[in-house]
Amino acid sequence: MLLESQWYVAAWSEEVGRSLLARRILGQRVVLYRTSAGAPVALADRCPHRSAPLSMGRLVDDGLECGYHGLVYDADGKCTRVPGQERIPPGATVRRYPAAEKYGMVWIWTGDTAAADPATIIDIPQFGASGWTRSRGYTYFASNYLNICDNLVDPAHTSFVHRATIGNASAADVAISAEERDGLVVAGRWIEDALPVPLVQRFMRPAGNVDRWQFYYLQAPCISWVDFGSFAVGTPQTDEEKNRAPFRILSYAMLAPETETTTHYFWFQLRNFAPGDAAVTAEFERIYAATFDEDRAILNEIQKIEAELPKAAAVRIASDGGPVRYRRAVQRLWDAEQAARQPARRLG
Amino acid sequence: MLLESQWYVAAWSEEVGRSLLARRILGQRVVLYRTSAGAPVALADRCPHRSAPLSMGRLVDDGLECGYHGLVYDADGKCTRVPGQERIPPGATVRRYPAAEKYGMVWIWTGDTAAADPATIIDIPQFGASGWTRSRGYTYFASNYLNICDNLVDPAHTSFVHRATIGNASAADVAISAEERDGLVVAGRWIEDALPVPLVQRFMRPAGNVDRWQFYYLQAPCISWVDFGSFAVGTPQTDEEKNRAPFRILSYAMLAPETETTTHYFWFQLRNFAPGDAAVTAEFERIYAATFDEDRAILNEIQKIEAELPKAAAVRIASDGGPVRYRRAVQRLWDAEQAARQPARRLG
Amino acid sequence: MLLESQWYVAAWSEEVGRSLLARRILGQRVVLYRTSAGAPVALADRCPHRSAPLSMGRLVDDGLECGYHGLVYDADGKCTRVPGQERIPPGATVRRYPAAEKYGMVWIWTGDTAAADPATIIDIPQFGASGWTRSRGYTYFASNYLNICDNLVDPAHTSFVHRATIGNASAADVAISAEERDGLVVAGRWIEDALPVPLVQRFMRPAGNVDRWQFYYLQAPCISWVDFGSFAVGTPQTDEEKNRAPFRILSYAMLAPETETTTHYFWFQLRNFAPGDAAVTAEFERIYAATFDEDRAILNEIQKIEAELPKAAAVRIASDGGPVRYRRAVQRLWDAEQAARQPARRLG
Repeated sequence: MLLESQWYVAAWSEEVGRSLLARRILGQRVVLYRTSAGAPVALADRCPHRSAPLSMGRLVDDGLECGYHGLVYDADGKCTRVPGQERIPPGATVRRYPAAEKYGMVWIWTGDTAAADPATIIDIPQFGASGWTRSRGYTYFASNYLNICDNLVDPAHTSFVHRATIGNASAADVAISAEERDGLVVAGRWIEDALPVPLVQRFMRPAGNVDRWQFYYLQAPCISWVDFGSFAVGTPQTDEEKNRAPFRILSYAMLAPETETTTHYFWFQLRNFAPGDAAVTAEFERIYAATFDEDRAILNEIQKIEAELPKAAAVRIASDGGPVRYRRAVQRLWDAEQAARQPARRLG
Repeated sequence: MLLESQWYVAAWSEEVGRSLLARRILGQRVVLYRTSAGAPVALADRCPHRSAPLSMGRLVDDGLECGYHGLVYDADGKCTRVPGQERIPPGATVRRYPAAEKYGMVWIWTGDTAAADPATIIDIPQFGASGWTRSRGYTYFASNYLNICDNLVDPAHTSFVHRATIGNASAADVAISAEERDGLVVAGRWIEDALPVPLVQRFMRPAGNVDRWQFYYLQAPCISWVDFGSFAVGTPQTDEEKNRAPFRILSYAMLAPETETTTHYFWFQLRNFAPGDAAVTAEFERIYAATFDEDRAILNEIQKIEAELPKAAAVRIASDGGPVRYRRAVQRLWDAEQAARQPARRLG
Repeated sequence: MLLESQWYVAAWSEEVGRSLLARRILGQRVVLYRTSAGAPVALADRCPHRSAPLSMGRLVDDGLECGYHGLVYDADGKCTRVPGQERIPPGATVRRYPAAEKYGMVWIWTGDTAAADPATIIDIPQFGASGWTRSRGYTYFASNYLNICDNLVDPAHTSFVHRATIGNASAADVAISAEERDGLVVAGRWIEDALPVPLVQRFMRPAGNVDRWQFYYLQAPCISWVDFGSFAVGTPQTDEEKNRAPFRILSYAMLAPETETTTHYFWFQLRNFAPGDAAVTAEFERIYAATFDEDRAILNEIQKIEAELPKAAAVRIASDGGPVRYRRAVQRLWDAEQAARQPARRLG
């Protein structure tokens, strides 16, 4: 269930330059580069002449020369040269994916070009704002994106999967509320007067118990963030107090399905403490990579088990409210895409 | 053709303890552990909530806690806890496989639980008896179990596959008798006044020729033993004389199909000489591992060839009596299982 | 589209001797060896008794003993011994492939034995002739043979794929003529008063520009040679002058499909300079191996892309004249084979 009318993160900005980057998104081979003016370009990575991957060719000015017979395509995917002949054959074009750059990432639109609007890419007010510092990384999952996103709107798993980092047992029995709000699935909870989790202990060093929060936001199909923090027991539970908290993290994950069963997972955190401290950033990147590896270990195995037992029954539990709402939201997007593909029907 | 109403060896006793062992039997993922009282437990290795493998969780007393959301299952596979809620959802159970321990191995029953009777596990009177010493090992085959068992009721192959260990050319033309007796397939022969095989030369050091015997027993589908030995030319061919022989081995193989095309092969020998001699045991384990590697090299290739050429014709030779009877016995077991699955038919 | 009524190179002469060589041709497992008189033998590599690969057995005089139960087959594939019995069962034969030796290679015929005629193997007058020296090598492609042969009748790709060795940009826009002549596809061109390619610069060291030629010959389905050289600008374009040229190479490639998607590629060059110079031969073997690796890198990727997108459209360009004619020639051979397999129809 791969949704096409979406912006997906295809690469970090630094990965895309004046050389050719091959990447697979939604099962499609894409080649990425920048024009000499710096604009990101994403083209289908297949020459329509003999099916050679264009990423094995080379840049010629702002165009791409196929490494097999030298056909050149411009940044719009139009063939501009065929060695040995004047005439450009009809059909000698490659698909251009609309590309945009935001938050240090190159995004591509995989739906109809006419419908691409970079203004619809998610807004992140804290990104680059004063007082917020970014850590980041990339994790490759041999799992479909749906199961990963279930996990990203499911605070309950942290008490078991992430005991060593962002979870602990004291939250295990605290109920989670889940809802759909403003086009997002939101699941979360306050855990009051509780033992801080290992990550908070490491950076905040509280004397005793804390009040802590976990709120998971998911914009279907593939954009996730977790608002996560701790402050003194009894502090008012307002956004202003959360920003003043000695420990608040906004943890973003931008997923891009590589195929039906594998997923690119670009992640970054914005934190409200130790601003600009490179050592803290490095430690965050290490800890979060380990945290997502914990998720990956389980999710990759689930991928295999689901493939072996496609019809196995599943039981539901109370904390599934987030995943259940997420799957409904994806199904609505899917149905809308399918409906938009139907030819118009005669009405009368 | 995987038979379910059977006891299969799933592990050595030492492999099963207070940690979690994942193993696949008949294509099914199984997790094995022991209760605090020491009883072996085998459960389906899939949480019915989100399909996580339970073997990635941890033991909680005598139960198993899923590593994803903390659901706990007791040793009968019944869910006893769902974090965050009181109610246990219906369907939150995992299959329990009846388990038994015998001959230093953990056996599991893969058929209907009601039909499991550990008393039907094969009887091995010499196991642990005075004068008999065990050597053992494990070999993994990328071959279906049927072809391996053919080999285990086929003395003729030893003259060619195992020239360096348990066979030699002097037996190549000695006829083999095969029969079904007491629910077993038995194939064997006496090779009289013949050169001893390398293994006998190594341990018995006979001055010249010997009388030797090879009798292969197979209890379909997966239990095999070979009675194998040598004594002075002209010795009466009785069981008493065989026990008194300077060299007698009972070589057992307990197979468990991992999948349709791969097989666990647990093996041990009981020998009547050098009792308790650890150096001899170690040498036996080395030699038998090498011997089964010789079988495996051929059988793994045959697996590939049969997959490539599923309809290739096969010619039969005189020494196929054991394999032919074995396949018939498996077919009977299969037919009986299929018949037992049919819904009762209206009779009148 | 694997053609059977053909001679294919199965091995270098040196690879075939008094031990057993397993090789797959047209998807079929073949075992190769020599009789004690030195004649090459090719048999199907499967014992019809239990499907063991005969290449895991051993030579017994001029026959082959199966490593599983000792059945012996003679060089015609007829079973001559079954251990333990007098009678040879009907059907105990393995297919013999007619084999021939020519140009230091063992060729096998994969069609009907009655139609095998070694005299139809291609004639190479320069092979072993005075003044001509051979270099050679082997390259394994994870590509179907058709795409490789397209490449071998397509001089246009050298300007892009082989910039570092046998091509350069000065030929990129020189038109190519392609035709079918004498049962061959021929594509080629003269590039006049042009910069010599790197390989010519290395060995001929011309002072300035040269006239150079590239003529690609293909005998469908799998025999290719390229006539390739340079001489002084303005030299008459005759075969005598080409032989007198300071640099002429006849570069042969004999392909044998291993499977539908993988190909053995046996190649050699005959050069008209530095006769018998082992250092030049070694350098040629290094350079040509690198050249074919350049082709392979692209062709192996094309294989994957075509498998992913079997219905993707293809545009044609002017330089495709060779490949287009080659595909037509293969189609004719295929149609003829299919027609020959039809049972005769009643005529009146």
